[in-house]
Amino acid sequence: MRVLGVDPGLTRCGLGVVDGRPGRATMVAVGVVRTPGDADPGERLVFLERELDGWLDRFAPEVMAIERVFADVNVSSVMTTAHATAIALLTATKRGIPVVFHTPTEVKAAVTGSGRADKAQVTAMVTRILGLEVAPRPADAADALALAICHSWRGAATARLDNLAALALSERARR
Amino acid sequence: MRVLGVDPGLTRCGLGVVDGRPGRATMVAVGVVRTPGDADPGERLVFLERELDGWLDRFAPEVMAIERVFADVNVSSVMTTAHATAIALLTATKRGIPVVFHTPTEVKAAVTGSGRADKAQVTAMVTRILGLEVAPRPADAADALALAICHSWRGAATARLDNLAALALSERARR
Repeated sequence: MRVLGVDPGLTRCGLGVVDGRPGRATMVAVGVVRTPGDADPGERLVFLERELDGWLDRFAPEVMAIERVFADVNVSSVMTTAHATAIALLTATKRGIPVVFHTPTEVKAAVTGSGRADKAQVTAMVTRILGLEVAPRPADAADALALAICHSWRGAATARLDNLAALALSERARR
Repeated sequence: MRVLGVDPGLTRCGLGVVDGRPGRATMVAVGVVRTPGDADPGERLVFLERELDGWLDRFAPEVMAIERVFADVNVSSVMTTAHATAIALLTATKRGIPVVFHTPTEVKAAVTGSGRADKAQVTAMVTRILGLEVAPRPADAADALALAICHSWRGAATARLDNLAALALSERARR
């Protein structure tokens, strides 16, 4: 399953593409989209939309996984983060790509085994899981990869359960 | 000056188009875009984008005025409001239409004379200023018209000051 992880933001939006199945994951691409804080707010969104469209064209992910941000975490940046989230949601939906949200706790637990892991632990585990020679920088890039790993593992497990359920239903229908 | 006022939201997004100059304003159009709360979040944004594009095509406003929402007003709805704001900002910017933000206090002060006016007072003044026979409903529609009135009055005043400043500069350059 190919997943584009998005750590949403306008100053820095982390993007990471991972091909994964439970217990395994390969990095396809990683990067950060930056827009200057003094730029026109609308122009920042147009630029981000263009960059996201480019990533979706180039890497054709099956799913987009976005970090779910809570309104009470950091009031000053929460509005621009929400704007970036909306643009990511819009670009994926217009292409028919499903979008899932994962909380930071879910992502940390998926890659480190603990929902309370710190940024350094997440980066270290992402580097190890993907077999990278150097750690991805900045933290937004590592977070985007962690999101993509998290979803490719969870998504694959969910798909397997769905297949089992469909199989059980068709078995029952046959009897 | 023709202004499209946007009271952002996903459940209800108020839209109002006004032709105005200081002390006078005429309604061109008013409406509300609604998306069901149980719809896919991405589909709601795609639908809102399409509706906004339609309004921009039909009414060709010179400016879009959006209500500035603060993160601490209502935590539960602030994220969807921010998403709707981002879509409005994106659609206008992609057409080269400038976007301005006004706080609820600025809008109330512009149409009622008091920044602490309640919703009923705002609706009553919008109805009177625009010479409408019936009050615009729901409140989101009235708020969008109030925003457009607020900006067409302030914007025209600002433009007049800009013209005076430009005139003074050119006078000075001629001497």
